[in-house]
Amino acid sequence: MNFQIIKRTLGWILLFEALFFLVPIITAIVYKEAALVSFLVAMSLCLAVGAMLLIKKPTNEFIYAKEGIVIVALSWIAMSIFGALPFWFNGVDFVDALFETVSGFTTTGSTIFPTEAYPSVEALPKSILIWRSFSHWVGGMGVLVLIMAFLPLSGARNMHIMRAESPGPTVDKLVPRVKTTAAVLYSIYFVMTIAQFVILLCGKMPAFDALNTAFATAGTGGFSVKADGIAGYSPFIQVVTIIFMLLFSINFNSYYLLLRKKPKEAFNTEVKAFLIIVLVAITAIAINIFVTSGKIYNYTLGESVRHSAFSVATVISTTGFAIENFDLWPVFSKTILVILMFIGACAGSTGGGIKVSRIVILVKGMLHELKLMLHPRQVKKISIDKRPVENETVRTVCFYLVAYILIFLASLLVISLDGFDLTTNFTAVSATINNVGPGLSVVGPTGTFQGFSNVSKLVFIFDMLVGRLEIFPMLLLLTPATWKKN
Amino acid sequence: MNFQIIKRTLGWILLFEALFFLVPIITAIVYKEAALVSFLVAMSLCLAVGAMLLIKKPTNEFIYAKEGIVIVALSWIAMSIFGALPFWFNGVDFVDALFETVSGFTTTGSTIFPTEAYPSVEALPKSILIWRSFSHWVGGMGVLVLIMAFLPLSGARNMHIMRAESPGPTVDKLVPRVKTTAAVLYSIYFVMTIAQFVILLCGKMPAFDALNTAFATAGTGGFSVKADGIAGYSPFIQVVTIIFMLLFSINFNSYYLLLRKKPKEAFNTEVKAFLIIVLVAITAIAINIFVTSGKIYNYTLGESVRHSAFSVATVISTTGFAIENFDLWPVFSKTILVILMFIGACAGSTGGGIKVSRIVILVKGMLHELKLMLHPRQVKKISIDKRPVENETVRTVCFYLVAYILIFLASLLVISLDGFDLTTNFTAVSATINNVGPGLSVVGPTGTFQGFSNVSKLVFIFDMLVGRLEIFPMLLLLTPATWKKN
Repeated sequence: MNFQIIKRTLGWILLFEALFFLVPIITAIVYKEAALVSFLVAMSLCLAVGAMLLIKKPTNEFIYAKEGIVIVALSWIAMSIFGALPFWFNGVDFVDALFETVSGFTTTGSTIFPTEAYPSVEALPKSILIWRSFSHWVGGMGVLVLIMAFLPLSGARNMHIMRAESPGPTVDKLVPRVKTTAAVLYSIYFVMTIAQFVILLCGKMPAFDALNTAFATAGTGGFSVKADGIAGYSPFIQVVTIIFMLLFSINFNSYYLLLRKKPKEAFNTEVKAFLIIVLVAITAIAINIFVTSGKIYNYTLGESVRHSAFSVATVISTTGFAIENFDLWPVFSKTILVILMFIGACAGSTGGGIKVSRIVILVKGMLHELKLMLHPRQVKKISIDKRPVENETVRTVCFYLVAYILIFLASLLVISLDGFDLTTNFTAVSATINNVGPGLSVVGPTGTFQGFSNVSKLVFIFDMLVGRLEIFPMLLLLTPATWKKN
Repeated sequence: MNFQIIKRTLGWILLFEALFFLVPIITAIVYKEAALVSFLVAMSLCLAVGAMLLIKKPTNEFIYAKEGIVIVALSWIAMSIFGALPFWFNGVDFVDALFETVSGFTTTGSTIFPTEAYPSVEALPKSILIWRSFSHWVGGMGVLVLIMAFLPLSGARNMHIMRAESPGPTVDKLVPRVKTTAAVLYSIYFVMTIAQFVILLCGKMPAFDALNTAFATAGTGGFSVKADGIAGYSPFIQVVTIIFMLLFSINFNSYYLLLRKKPKEAFNTEVKAFLIIVLVAITAIAINIFVTSGKIYNYTLGESVRHSAFSVATVISTTGFAIENFDLWPVFSKTILVILMFIGACAGSTGGGIKVSRIVILVKGMLHELKLMLHPRQVKKISIDKRPVENETVRTVCFYLVAYILIFLASLLVISLDGFDLTTNFTAVSATINNVGPGLSVVGPTGTFQGFSNVSKLVFIFDMLVGRLEIFPMLLLLTPATWKKN
């Protein structure tokens, strides 16, 4: 294990995080908030510790896949601890502060607010609010990927880190140099965020709200500056949010391919599968809630479609914005939404969940298995987009699913000691491990994670990181063999 | 597709089923029940249709794996349809009758009773009760395996059929001839059933109840002749039932190896893993319900252990007998029980679920995957009991899990249209696909599947068959490619 290089990368992470604090600091200055001090202190601590870690230059710059994975896992943990300081300084319990920060960076959007000190999310200082939303934006595309675009690091190291931080079963280099790939992806991300911000402004959303909403949508996070999420805004703003939640759920490589005028390659199997799932789910839920309308809720056909589309987009993109308490909807609709939580967005997007490409590989593999039973001597591999999928990839995806299930069940067991009902527990784990945000029942769109014990909150923190970093980095961190000498 | 041989095997199945009807017929004669007529008619129909199918001798006896799988799936469906006739003749709706019969043969034990005509299961004629229990016994070890032990069929055909009907990822031939293997397994099964019957009699259980209980335990089925299951019997009888439920959950090959004085081989990884899971679960639940005792239920330490042991045994063996409404227990205990439903029994036992050996392969594979990430050039296979597990087996087990999840979710969606709560729906699918019997909430130990629509009941029927035949036979039945000419 090359500890020198791990220390050095952590140093860089903290220096970058210090820069990130400029966003809430400027906000605090503009709005003349007392929270300014807390951000200045957090920034100084970040700078000091970051600089200390950078003092000694490493003698050996080379890293293996193992180091890449450990670097990513430790960076995210360090970043979350320092990111939690402003919450803590402003009277939030440390575990709660860490929960909220991890929920931010991992683009989950599960919240521990309201608390006693802050009876509503709207009671939070604006600088805290923007720090929450901005953490979504930073976490969405990956912090290390951002740093890679700026720092002069070796190519091999970059690839290992990018593989460990980017969502999805495989990572494509768009251009020969990883560094340039990172820069291209971040540029697309930046432009799309600006686009949403501007369109929201056109819809007469207040500038502060529009900026927060754009950050939270881009990262598919889901923190909102309003207690009722997006419900209070105009239908226009809601529709814009639906569209951008879906746009940010699509593999960013596809946008690059579109820019390169390769629409056929951009519109690949994963994107098609994603859009089909979205359309089918919207239709099924819209019919279901329209037909059952009249009792608890009252929807016209148009409202049914809009509410259905919003809920489907917010869940499958794993954003987690709320406009409607879908916990009140019929069980059929709720079941669809819970299934969408697990499916999640496309690989290479900012969304969470298992990812559509993994689902495609698993379903194709299963159908192939049936074929093999009929014709045992067939040896063809499965293929996606006319390219064969390596057996190694299929195997890794399968064991990804197994690891995912095991962590899910272990989490479920621990948090069940808090005594909440089965639906709450199941969807709370699902909402955190899939980086969605809200679940059902106690943790539904109008609920909060505040009621859980600190032990459960730590489990959720672990699950959110597991979801965002796609399981293996967090598991390897806990594997003794990782820490053995090379 | 060799239709001749399929027809012929179906013919034999029906002739054997006609023989099975002798058990309720004798019961009806002994207890002078009017239901006698219904069984005589069902038996005659079975004989007539069976004989018709056997008239023409096949010109080609050879079958491929494909035919073996289709034969097993169709046999189970045919057997269930004819087995449902007596229920139907006695005033049960046909879909309900089919549900109850499939629940019997697949050793599930989910029930649609009480109905209007039969306000309690105790109101059923004794001949119907024994037909229910006996169907568990017949289905437990596999009907085709039984027939194989008697009929002069070719070896290759036997192996294909045995593979398709026996639970678990791989099938061991104990002795060179499949036929003899089948006979050995059935002998062990027979002797153990008798043993339980005799011990229950020693515990002063009425003979009729003891016979039914022995049949239902041996098949890990769970139908009971009492409305409150095993709750009304003495602690001695309950403890005996616990022990036999666990004994019937262990791979029968292990008993054969014990008889051959090979205790080391008998006590293999799967058996060890099974016993560890059982002990840990019993301890955790016993502590949990003892500590929370005093409100809804009142347990001494001894009672906590006995109730915990009974529930763990009844769920992991996928028997489904009830002594206590565990739906009232704390969520932690309920979560453990739900997880045990999925784990299920050992391969090669009469129990259902995913099977401990599959879980062992999946967990070992996952840990191996972590090792591969640390040392990418390692190529060693995983091994169990010092034997390497073929990549093919690992792959099939993985896609077994995938197919299992997909069927689970599809079922969940369809039955959610009936409007029951999420816990009911989730555990109802789990109880049927894992062949357990009861779930939680509406389908809890004191509940019934009666309230579901016919469409949902058909889904459950499919799921029970999917669980008992281990997914692929039922899926291949629905795959158009299966029916193409060779």
